[in-house]
Amino acid sequence: MKETIQNANFPRDAEGHVYHLHVKTGQVANRILTVGDHVRARAIAQHLDQVYFEHSSQRGFLTITGSYQGTPVSIMAIGMGNPMMDFFVRETRAVVEGDIAIIRFGSCGSLTQKAGPGAVIVPQGGYCIRRNIDYFCDEPMQKNIEQQAYLISGNFAADKVMTEQLATSVSKVLAPHQLGPVLTGGLNADGCSFYSSQGRLDPQFWDDNEQVITEALALHPDTQSLEMETSMLFHLAHCSKGTIRAAGCMQVFADRVNNGFISPEMVAKLEPLVGQAVLDTLVQVKLENEMQGPNTVWA
Amino acid sequence: MKETIQNANFPRDAEGHVYHLHVKTGQVANRILTVGDHVRARAIAQHLDQVYFEHSSQRGFLTITGSYQGTPVSIMAIGMGNPMMDFFVRETRAVVEGDIAIIRFGSCGSLTQKAGPGAVIVPQGGYCIRRNIDYFCDEPMQKNIEQQAYLISGNFAADKVMTEQLATSVSKVLAPHQLGPVLTGGLNADGCSFYSSQGRLDPQFWDDNEQVITEALALHPDTQSLEMETSMLFHLAHCSKGTIRAAGCMQVFADRVNNGFISPEMVAKLEPLVGQAVLDTLVQVKLENEMQGPNTVWA
Repeated sequence: MKETIQNANFPRDAEGHVYHLHVKTGQVANRILTVGDHVRARAIAQHLDQVYFEHSSQRGFLTITGSYQGTPVSIMAIGMGNPMMDFFVRETRAVVEGDIAIIRFGSCGSLTQKAGPGAVIVPQGGYCIRRNIDYFCDEPMQKNIEQQAYLISGNFAADKVMTEQLATSVSKVLAPHQLGPVLTGGLNADGCSFYSSQGRLDPQFWDDNEQVITEALALHPDTQSLEMETSMLFHLAHCSKGTIRAAGCMQVFADRVNNGFISPEMVAKLEPLVGQAVLDTLVQVKLENEMQGPNTVWA
Repeated sequence: MKETIQNANFPRDAEGHVYHLHVKTGQVANRILTVGDHVRARAIAQHLDQVYFEHSSQRGFLTITGSYQGTPVSIMAIGMGNPMMDFFVRETRAVVEGDIAIIRFGSCGSLTQKAGPGAVIVPQGGYCIRRNIDYFCDEPMQKNIEQQAYLISGNFAADKVMTEQLATSVSKVLAPHQLGPVLTGGLNADGCSFYSSQGRLDPQFWDDNEQVITEALALHPDTQSLEMETSMLFHLAHCSKGTIRAAGCMQVFADRVNNGFISPEMVAKLEPLVGQAVLDTLVQVKLENEMQGPNTVWA
């Protein structure tokens, strides 16, 4: 810990940096590509015309702000899990003026025969699977859900226009390379664990998760992908009072139907192309009140 | 992504490294001190007699294995949020043979006048506050909890013996420096967000969280601290079929009663001493079937 912090409700340092991302107003653009992995973020940043700002925070967030085809964009790596998505969305919202467009580029497990390792899924929305911690408690507090080990939410829609543009852009960059397929129109399920709430079986723990994927598919038959952050992004955009628009795409890493995994060679081919397609989409989005002027790193 | 992975249920590379922590059997000791911040982990590692192994994984986990007063211990930094705790506990359990003792050393917000910034809290147990994602949905799926924006779990006890030893050790190292106080006997609340589920008010989002801390205190009047990982550790130890024992202590960073924040100078004084007390406690724990032999980095 380096700086003196004021305000325990929404901590910032004396220069206005938010506490965990360690960025301040003017350092993050209104158009944001977000990934989990820092290495992926740096690889995609190769597509930028110029980089104006780069910062890796002590708490695990990387921000790279530059321009793509002349438009300011930020590429932000946020690590893993829905709380990291929450930090990212809230602290970004706190330092960006005007509307924000966010596209998540993640990796996922696939629940469909149509999407093996190397496929790209562009979901039209997503829901969350959360472990009901109380179910496992000796003295539970939530009597009305005491029979449910996992809680499956309703759906949060991705931004329709951005999602359509994203699917088109991804298909366009992959087609010449015979990569894909690109799956659209389905839903993403975002679990609070890589293991229990995604139905992975681990005999070392009491999880009662043998039925969680079956139950999720019964409620949401169009589920195609499983991961840990994208539905949380859609959920927070839904709760942002209309100021955040969000879409997402995921490379299939784990084939949960046939128990396969993507090869490093396929990732090396796919990732730069999908990254480019996300940037192509981001700069097309029509945004209100985009930041400009002398207080931005791109001025 | 560098290695070819087998088994989408519990991914490991060909050498047996688990996927996110990137460690294999023999690289992690049965006694583990865990923190969020990599910088904190490296600072505490200065107390080790020797370091045998160190690895920083691409997905944000740092493992340092060495000896403290002749006993093998690991210091592991896991980032932030309950999903990161879940990755850490499950992938560690998968590569360690025999019982495991884990002590979390974190930072927290305080809900009590008795513990301002710089106090250390050693909770006897903890519960979780989770946002009910479904509450915010246009078409909710969980009809029986549709009026609850946040779900507050029952309590999971920390290991009693380890907790008592930890409180004693922390008090002992702080006393000569007139640091503290050390608070014991209360509960920790672990939120799924730094913001909404810890009752921080953010007018930019629809959160309906004005009452969440009041509700938590009504169910658990002994709550002293608020953070994001420690109750999840106690919960997973509870679900580990008796193979994991866990305790925790937290430095108070944010005073949520008087809206104050710890100074960098206080952290610099407190952190090395509490780190030492945790190590002192870890090496006292009586453990069954502790790993030894030629396949460990400490052999």
